[in-house]
Amino acid sequence: MNWKSEIKAAADRIAGHAQVTPVMESRVVGLDYPVEMKLEHMQHTGSFKARGAFNTLLSMEVPQAGVVAASGGNHGAAAAFAARALDHPAKIFVPELAGPSKIALIEQIGADLSVVSGEYANALTMARIHEEETGAMQIHAYDAPATVAGQGTCFAEWDAQGLQADTVLIAVGGGGLIAGALAWFQGARKVVAVEPETSCALHAALGAGEPVDVSVSGIAANALGARQIGRICFDLAQGVNSVLVPDEAIAAAQQTLWQAHRILVEPAGATALAALMSGAYQPDPGERVAVLVCGGNIAPDPLAG
Amino acid sequence: MNWKSEIKAAADRIAGHAQVTPVMESRVVGLDYPVEMKLEHMQHTGSFKARGAFNTLLSMEVPQAGVVAASGGNHGAAAAFAARALDHPAKIFVPELAGPSKIALIEQIGADLSVVSGEYANALTMARIHEEETGAMQIHAYDAPATVAGQGTCFAEWDAQGLQADTVLIAVGGGGLIAGALAWFQGARKVVAVEPETSCALHAALGAGEPVDVSVSGIAANALGARQIGRICFDLAQGVNSVLVPDEAIAAAQQTLWQAHRILVEPAGATALAALMSGAYQPDPGERVAVLVCGGNIAPDPLAG
Repeated sequence: MNWKSEIKAAADRIAGHAQVTPVMESRVVGLDYPVEMKLEHMQHTGSFKARGAFNTLLSMEVPQAGVVAASGGNHGAAAAFAARALDHPAKIFVPELAGPSKIALIEQIGADLSVVSGEYANALTMARIHEEETGAMQIHAYDAPATVAGQGTCFAEWDAQGLQADTVLIAVGGGGLIAGALAWFQGARKVVAVEPETSCALHAALGAGEPVDVSVSGIAANALGARQIGRICFDLAQGVNSVLVPDEAIAAAQQTLWQAHRILVEPAGATALAALMSGAYQPDPGERVAVLVCGGNIAPDPLAG
Repeated sequence: MNWKSEIKAAADRIAGHAQVTPVMESRVVGLDYPVEMKLEHMQHTGSFKARGAFNTLLSMEVPQAGVVAASGGNHGAAAAFAARALDHPAKIFVPELAGPSKIALIEQIGADLSVVSGEYANALTMARIHEEETGAMQIHAYDAPATVAGQGTCFAEWDAQGLQADTVLIAVGGGGLIAGALAWFQGARKVVAVEPETSCALHAALGAGEPVDVSVSGIAANALGARQIGRICFDLAQGVNSVLVPDEAIAAAQQTLWQAHRILVEPAGATALAALMSGAYQPDPGERVAVLVCGGNIAPDPLAG
C-alpha cells in the first residue's frame, strides 16, 4: 500500500469535517527541554478517532443499514458523530468499562448504543454479529486501512503546521494512531510507542514476534486497553522503540498538563508525556521531542452537575 | 505613548518567560460561521495576566522588598509566578471571592498570601498599604502602562500567528486586556468589549462619560468584577462596541467549549464567546470574528481529590 498517498487522499476527504487541532511548544512540563505538543484531544468528540471515522465513511459506500462500531468509548463517539454528520444511522457497542462519561457522550450524539458486559473484545464480538445480521458497515477502531489512513492525517497536518521534532511519542492501544504515524513519517521522524504497563498489546507482540493476547487493566484501560494489537500496526511497528509507563506516571502527567497549561485530558491523553516525565524514554542531548495529546474524555464530566 | 513600540518592546522582554499560546479555528460552537480562537487560558498560571506581570518586573527596578499585588485571583497567581521565576519575593492580597481554587493556586506557587474580606477593592487598599509600609513594588492588575503593554503582546503574537479576523471579541474586567488589544490594533481590527450584565465597569463608564463605580456579582465576578474601569482602558476604549451578556449565556458558552473542544475554562474565559452564541454581538454577513479565550482557572480543580 502507498500509505503516503492514502493519507493525503484521506486528508482531502475529511477536510472541513475533522477539526484542525492546535499545536504548541511547552517549556514547563517539569523537563529541562521543550516539548512540542499537538492538542488532538480538541478534535470532535475529544479524540483523534474522528479522523478515521470520517475517512472510512467518506471513502466507502455506506449501506442503508448504516454503520456499526465497537469501542472503549472514544471510537464509538467518533463513529456516531461522523455518522450523524453524514446522515447515516449508527449502532455502537461499548464495554461497561467505557464508563459513564463516554457512554453519556455517545448517547448525547444520538446513536443507538448497547453497553456490553466485560471488556472491549466482547463489544467487538457483538458488533460483528450486528454486522452480519443487518448488513451494517463495520468501522473498525484501529485495524483497517481506512482507519489508519484517517489517523495518519493527524501527522500530515502536524508536519504542515511546522513540526520540528526528531522524535514523536504516541500512546498505543489497538495501534491505529501509531500506525498512522508510522505510515506517514516512513522513518523521516523517529516514533516512540508508549503503553501503560497494565495494557501493553504492542509491547507484548513485539516481544513474542506476533500479536498475542494480553490482559488489560489500569487507569487508561478504556482507551488503551486493546487485548491484541492490530495487524496493520504490528507490521508497521517492526523495530519501533517501545516503552512502558506505570499508572502513577500517567496520573502525574495528567496533573502536569492541567497545572501547567489547563489542558484537561483523560489518562490515555497524558500517557505519551508520562514517558518523558518518568524517564521511560530519555532523549539524547539535543534531540527534539514531540508528544501527541490524543484524548480528553475525562470522567466525570468536569462541568456536570 | 507610542503603544506599538511599547508592546513590541514588551514582547521582546517576555519572550521565553511567557508561553506562546496556541490558536485554532472552530466551526462547531453552535454558530453558522467559523470563529478563530486564541487559547490564552493555556498561558502560565491559566490566564493572560502572566504577560503583564513579566513585562512589569522585567522593565523596572524591583526593590529588595519585592512585589505586591491585589487580585481577584488570576493576577495574583501571575504576579506570584513571575516573581518566583525572576527570584523576587511576592506578597499577594486576594478578596474572599477569589475562591478556594485560585487561592490554592497562589499558595502552591509559593507567594505570601493574605485573603481579605469583601470584594476586590478591599484587597487593592491592603496592597497599597503594604506598598507604602514596605517599599514593595505594586504590580497593578490592569491600570498601568507596563501591564497594558504586556497584555498587548497577546495580540501582537496572534497577528504573527496569522489572525484573519475583522473583529476580535474580548471579555472585560478592569480593562487591561482590552486596552492591550486596542493599543496594539489601533483600529486595524474592530474590537468588541464583552462584559457580564452583573459586572460591567466599562459599559457603565462609557454610558456615564467617565469611570464610575459599579456593583459586581455573578459567575465571572472573581475575574471580571472590577468596581471601576481602568483609566488607560477608558481612554483607549472611546467609541468601542460594548455589549453585555447574562450569566446564563456565559455558562452555556462554557459548556460549549468543553463539549466541542475539551476546552475547560472559568466563566470569564467563555464570556467573549457568549456574546456570539447569545446574539449579543451579531456579525455582519462575511464578517470574520475571533474570540480571545482568556482564563482557565475553574473551580473546583477538576483533578482534585
